Amino acid sequence: MGLQAVVERNEDGIATALDILTQAYGDRVERGQALREQHGHTTTWLRNQPPDAVIFPKSTEEVQDIVRICATHRVPIIAFGTGTSLEGHVNAPAGGISLDFSQMDAILEVHAEDMDVVIQPGVTRKALNAHLRDTGLFFPIDPGADASLGGMAATRASGTCAVRYGTMKDSVLALKAVLPSGEIVKTAARARKTSAGYDLTRLMIGSEGTLGIITELTLKLQGIPEATSAATCSFPSLEAACNAVITSFQYGLPVARIELLNALQVKACNAYSKLSLPEAPLLLLEFHGSESGVTEQAEIFGEIAGELGGTGYTFTTREEDRNKLWQARHDAYWAALQLRPGAQGISTDVCVPLSRLAECVTATEAKLAELGITAPIVGHVGDGNFHTLLLVDMSDPAEIAKAEGYVGWLAELAISMDGTCTGEHGIGQGKAKYLERELGAGAVGMMAAIKRGIDPDNIMNPGKILLPAAGLA
Amino acid sequence: MGLQAVVERNEDGIATALDILTQAYGDRVERGQALREQHGHTTTWLRNQPPDAVIFPKSTEEVQDIVRICATHRVPIIAFGTGTSLEGHVNAPAGGISLDFSQMDAILEVHAEDMDVVIQPGVTRKALNAHLRDTGLFFPIDPGADASLGGMAATRASGTCAVRYGTMKDSVLALKAVLPSGEIVKTAARARKTSAGYDLTRLMIGSEGTLGIITELTLKLQGIPEATSAATCSFPSLEAACNAVITSFQYGLPVARIELLNALQVKACNAYSKLSLPEAPLLLLEFHGSESGVTEQAEIFGEIAGELGGTGYTFTTREEDRNKLWQARHDAYWAALQLRPGAQGISTDVCVPLSRLAECVTATEAKLAELGITAPIVGHVGDGNFHTLLLVDMSDPAEIAKAEGYVGWLAELAISMDGTCTGEHGIGQGKAKYLERELGAGAVGMMAAIKRGIDPDNIMNPGKILLPAAGLA
Repeated sequence: MGLQAVVERNEDGIATALDILTQAYGDRVERGQALREQHGHTTTWLRNQPPDAVIFPKSTEEVQDIVRICATHRVPIIAFGTGTSLEGHVNAPAGGISLDFSQMDAILEVHAEDMDVVIQPGVTRKALNAHLRDTGLFFPIDPGADASLGGMAATRASGTCAVRYGTMKDSVLALKAVLPSGEIVKTAARARKTSAGYDLTRLMIGSEGTLGIITELTLKLQGIPEATSAATCSFPSLEAACNAVITSFQYGLPVARIELLNALQVKACNAYSKLSLPEAPLLLLEFHGSESGVTEQAEIFGEIAGELGGTGYTFTTREEDRNKLWQARHDAYWAALQLRPGAQGISTDVCVPLSRLAECVTATEAKLAELGITAPIVGHVGDGNFHTLLLVDMSDPAEIAKAEGYVGWLAELAISMDGTCTGEHGIGQGKAKYLERELGAGAVGMMAAIKRGIDPDNIMNPGKILLPAAGLA
Repeated sequence: MGLQAVVERNEDGIATALDILTQAYGDRVERGQALREQHGHTTTWLRNQPPDAVIFPKSTEEVQDIVRICATHRVPIIAFGTGTSLEGHVNAPAGGISLDFSQMDAILEVHAEDMDVVIQPGVTRKALNAHLRDTGLFFPIDPGADASLGGMAATRASGTCAVRYGTMKDSVLALKAVLPSGEIVKTAARARKTSAGYDLTRLMIGSEGTLGIITELTLKLQGIPEATSAATCSFPSLEAACNAVITSFQYGLPVARIELLNALQVKACNAYSKLSLPEAPLLLLEFHGSESGVTEQAEIFGEIAGELGGTGYTFTTREEDRNKLWQARHDAYWAALQLRPGAQGISTDVCVPLSRLAECVTATEAKLAELGITAPIVGHVGDGNFHTLLLVDMSDPAEIAKAEGYVGWLAELAISMDGTCTGEHGIGQGKAKYLERELGAGAVGMMAAIKRGIDPDNIMNPGKILLPAAGLA
């Protein structure tokens, strides 16, 4: 299910490389079926394509050694963080080796004065923030799942704080990677700014393991704000909610988070979290700054919202009250699942210019009603990015086909609005068929030229981002 | 003077291409010597290497046509904005065609709701901001010179506002470029966030015209802040000044600009602008936000500065007073030149982690004293980026050689501190010899692989960023 690129297996190469790797790494080369399946794709309807083996490297040098062995025998290598990706990034359509980074999870250096940190890619974002707690600093990218930072970099992840702090592309100062040639690349110095040659850091971020394996990251940190305020407000329409966001930005309001729940999602949250919010579009906001600043900002937003028909505006700076106010958002996923117990939740991911967001979400709601699909909507509305959570009975192929049809329709709609088929989940296998439609043959051809230049044998995560039609090995 | 890559001329190809281009573009193909020299490098001691002709394209399609003609005959193509680059980016070491973008200076679309704008690359930053004046929006990147935005993108420029608003890499949403193949590439949709494949936008930004010719840019805009405050403070030492910056960031103070003048630069400004500042390191700051916010922020900085020995702290929110307070910074370049009338000012550009900045600037001052070079220092201190303005008698080869030796020494020093040989001026010809020392053979090899993959005949701005040793055509 789901169109997936067919990539041919190199049986002899895989067998030979596995022999050599087993001699070198012994117990750390695992071949049990359950573990292999767990290292293929498991989170959506994309078919599980397990690797032939899973290896747990401990250092950049070991990764280099493993890559060299695999390169010699033309065996695919797929990096694995926590397996939370949604578009089949960790699948092994041509078999090969999964490199599981769970044993490369050291925090190597904390530079508090420079507000940066050097880590191994297996560190998860929650582990990093726990480690940083006493420094007054934090890492702001929050994609929901407690993903590994290597995986977040590889997929250019973002989440609720992106509107203020940017995405992974803005939060990585430099990285170290092993290329298919076995060469170790350092992409940048630790300075906060550089004009030194091609931006290899940004090229690796979002390359989904298809150009090389990230083995070290230097991340930019933020100061924990002195104060935080939270606010919520209901709106009579999606358009009114989106206009409140647009007006706030034009006003220069430094929003830290601004999330949208549509009426169905609010209804689900009312039932699940025992709330009594109006069943109408809801915005949830957070401001970071000084005590007086976050109060002032929340008040200004309240005025803007009021002028645009917002009702029930509430804000607070007290932590326990903030959590209550945001409860609908925190529980949104679990609340949504309760709309149809037993169904699997499949998350879509498009992003459009803010001026088109209300129109896009409205059309999406109409399409879902027409198709009879239950699917509440949550949006990182400050970026124009939103997700529908499709509640799908995975035992019914017709229903899956209908849902897949909808995903394609939504991707086309976003693209027609000068938007993208993926704001933060990445291309992987699931979105590969929309990439050329979105960016044109020129861009896909340029990506293929880069891929061929760096990975001529196509051993780095083959079958992701670029379809075989792009002329890869 | 200055090590410059030797790249071979293709006489026959240039002659043939020029015939074809002249037939197609008539008067817009200019070959006068003065104009050609003006389109070579003119701003430092790097030797002027004029192109064989200058063409003034009017559209992406014309650029495509010119690139195709040049590609067929293997003739170099060099994009030209306003010629303000400092590292020889516009030189034509192997001859070829300079594409002057002064006639592609249209502002194509202003999307006020999305806070973005679509422009042709010949638009300068001042022209853009003049055009935007009535929208309440502005484009924040300010490198000093009124450079073209195409050139600023190509060199990953930044300047005084980068500490708050980022550099060109953070301000370009998408771009259109013509590749050496003649293919037109659109790098991204207009959405504010995307995970759709390789980050071609960031790859083109800072590629200095070596991968393709930028013909359109979609830029992110910012809301003009409701209020601005300005402040200045003297410090007993560079270390105290840098510690004030570090403390402010850790506190989460949203500084919009924070500039450093060293004691010699302050002395020059006192003489030139008739000021009476203490001849000691001076910080100049700007805060953007609400009326009460910018006052609060300026007051907090005053407290931090006071604790670290800062003296003469002054701040204001009134526009005319702000200009007075920043006068030393605005006049810094002209004031510096008056330290040695008749000498040419040559600007260096390194960037180090903030924790090393005081040490780096202190060592730099000592080295300049040892060498007897007059060279005041101005720094974008929030980014760890600083410039020394070497005042050089260009008629004295020994003096130029000494200054060049110093530039190399400074690049090595910055690199040894995990910094970069260029924070914002780019590599061009002048810094090419330091790139491998900074990033290693792996990174330079990866850049060369990308270059070969996209521009196998090396017709796009040859001899820049990568030295011939990188194995280019």
